[in-house]
Amino acid sequence: MQKAVLITIGDEILSGNTVDTNSNFIAAELKNIGIQVSQIFTISDEIDTIKNTLSAAFELGELIITTGGLGPTRDDKTKKALAEFFNDEIVLDEVTFNHLKAYMERRGRIDILERNKEQAFVPAKSIVFQNHYGTAPCMMMEQDGKLCFSLPGVPYEVKPLIKDQIMPYLQEKFNLDYIHTRIVSVVGIPESILADMIEEWELALPENLSLSYLPVGTRVKLRLTASGSNEEILKQQTENEIQKLLPLVGNHVIAVSEDKIEKILAEILTERKLTISTAESCTGGELAKMITSNPGSSNYFPGGIVTYATEKKIEILKVSKETVDEFTVVSEQVAQEMAEGCRKLFNTDIALSTTGVAGPGKGEDGKEIGTVYYTIQFHDQQVTSRLYMPHLERLDFMNFVSQKILQDLVGLLIGH
Amino acid sequence: MQKAVLITIGDEILSGNTVDTNSNFIAAELKNIGIQVSQIFTISDEIDTIKNTLSAAFELGELIITTGGLGPTRDDKTKKALAEFFNDEIVLDEVTFNHLKAYMERRGRIDILERNKEQAFVPAKSIVFQNHYGTAPCMMMEQDGKLCFSLPGVPYEVKPLIKDQIMPYLQEKFNLDYIHTRIVSVVGIPESILADMIEEWELALPENLSLSYLPVGTRVKLRLTASGSNEEILKQQTENEIQKLLPLVGNHVIAVSEDKIEKILAEILTERKLTISTAESCTGGELAKMITSNPGSSNYFPGGIVTYATEKKIEILKVSKETVDEFTVVSEQVAQEMAEGCRKLFNTDIALSTTGVAGPGKGEDGKEIGTVYYTIQFHDQQVTSRLYMPHLERLDFMNFVSQKILQDLVGLLIGH
Repeated sequence: MQKAVLITIGDEILSGNTVDTNSNFIAAELKNIGIQVSQIFTISDEIDTIKNTLSAAFELGELIITTGGLGPTRDDKTKKALAEFFNDEIVLDEVTFNHLKAYMERRGRIDILERNKEQAFVPAKSIVFQNHYGTAPCMMMEQDGKLCFSLPGVPYEVKPLIKDQIMPYLQEKFNLDYIHTRIVSVVGIPESILADMIEEWELALPENLSLSYLPVGTRVKLRLTASGSNEEILKQQTENEIQKLLPLVGNHVIAVSEDKIEKILAEILTERKLTISTAESCTGGELAKMITSNPGSSNYFPGGIVTYATEKKIEILKVSKETVDEFTVVSEQVAQEMAEGCRKLFNTDIALSTTGVAGPGKGEDGKEIGTVYYTIQFHDQQVTSRLYMPHLERLDFMNFVSQKILQDLVGLLIGH
Repeated sequence: MQKAVLITIGDEILSGNTVDTNSNFIAAELKNIGIQVSQIFTISDEIDTIKNTLSAAFELGELIITTGGLGPTRDDKTKKALAEFFNDEIVLDEVTFNHLKAYMERRGRIDILERNKEQAFVPAKSIVFQNHYGTAPCMMMEQDGKLCFSLPGVPYEVKPLIKDQIMPYLQEKFNLDYIHTRIVSVVGIPESILADMIEEWELALPENLSLSYLPVGTRVKLRLTASGSNEEILKQQTENEIQKLLPLVGNHVIAVSEDKIEKILAEILTERKLTISTAESCTGGELAKMITSNPGSSNYFPGGIVTYATEKKIEILKVSKETVDEFTVVSEQVAQEMAEGCRKLFNTDIALSTTGVAGPGKGEDGKEIGTVYYTIQFHDQQVTSRLYMPHLERLDFMNFVSQKILQDLVGLLIGH
């Protein structure tokens, strides 16, 4: 199997200002074509550091991909480091300059072409992949049969460069093994018990198959990866192993082969022609966002509402004022009435509601931070649950609760 | 300045399955106490790799923090690597075992204590920091005055360990320089022009001050960082430099000192006692989520609605059917009527609306993927804009559009 090494260049990542999402995207894309990332280096924008890391990377893999450090500003030194490392000189590339010119024209910014001209200077030996969404091109250097790609750092420039240009190039260039991956999602069982339950099975896996445990909230994803030269054999191998695994894990399995909970849900809703809506308080829109992050969600999600203010719960969702007064706004009863009101407002089969305190700072009625009640309503049937997660930060809380609700819903729909 | 090296251990990151958010969190926390992360290694869960990386890390910094690879399952080998690296043996730690026992009891899972007992085995020379939100403890080893902390990989276990235990420990242990950071947010001007405009100023910065460019969507954040032994002097230095910078950048500055756009907006809304609501289509809840991600948002955000289905735009937001028929649902006119309806529904000073096609797959009326119209309504005044971002993936599109709207709103409110 080919090994890749990623190098993320930029002080904004080392200073904690920006989360590096490029590495995740590139690693997943490479995995799809059977290239394993063996290491990621995140380094600062200094010429010596870049050169030393390139040396280390060339020891570890056959493919190096760097991101970041190619902008026109003062703290970008990658190009200079590349030229020095490969004993090359930086020259103006006419094709790249013309591409840059056309790009600037298209954006109505031909007036600043000269200021960006530096972007068209590349190491003389490099092969250039043009960037259609920014000014910094992608440059590839080859040495002893190993490849080094340098990309800009902006994620929406990186994604199309990787997907549309670099992946097809790599597939043609290398003669790659096939990779086949299956994921089994397990809920309601701690990782340590699960590990015991399937230990014998895991130890007996064929050598070209490997298992990983990926915890997501209260769910554990078991990922089975197979690699080899015959795709059909890999599919059959993984299928065989999954058929042996399923009886061991019993009804803790909520899905086989799909990954994100919103995608699992989407398949069930689509197959059963069910619609869904949301009424959120403490999750603040995260639940709606998770559902709509799935392409095609407009087929089953007519909409959702965020009622942060109690009076809006009463006015729009028809929660009764008496219920609020008697039980407080963060209560089982209010969650239930919100779900009922939501289902009527959007006229859906299923309605989900949340009411709680994401913190920091206590809610209107002094309820503890981290408490949330949520209701899943399916036609006339309601299930209301309580979660208490005081240790989560605000955004993590919103996400954790939303994940858990969708997970519960999937469990309910498949009849656990 | 102390240098730190982070080591992220886990195949789930190298395979692109999980985004590493721990490094970002830890780097930002360290920065706050004046410790700079000089490098991040992301490596696989193999004993030799872990040991080699520890060697490299000890060359680069005085503080090493590893995350991941401490769970009870088969693919976690960090603890073994630590013991080998430090020539230590792994022993049962009674205090840690008692802590684990109490943790299990609290969670009603004393039945699985034995299965997790392995978690109470630690290198004999290590100092243990107990984990209150999971079973794997944090272990610290010291060697030649350098420190190495090993943490579990689950973000909600990492955060409290870092914040509540490790940061206070480090502050006491090291005699640290002060750090002072200011951020100036600039909009409506490309990075390359900005760099030219402020070049002279940047070159003349005192040696203990450094500048970084951090692009976020269509905004550029200029971060000025000062370090030194006297906090008051640092504050004055950065303030002086910002006063010199502001006239150079003119009315492109939308905020000084604050970071996220939702936080900048929160301050303006709170100060001017304004309320805001949202009516979303293609952003699917992301806009509401961004606003509510700010603590205290319940003071100015009574709620928002996601009307994915056209009929819900008509029924709930009172968009007229004629408008939809004449102009299609992805149009300036529908965005305007959605904003108007939203402002009435939630009775707020400001209403924001979005209608567009996030893709993939064209919208109901065949409009191009990546097109969005959005309206900012402030009392009776409306501003509607169009964005066309066909190259963005679904979630990136939702986020980019939401960022841009909040940025426009801030610009509008401060009178640009």
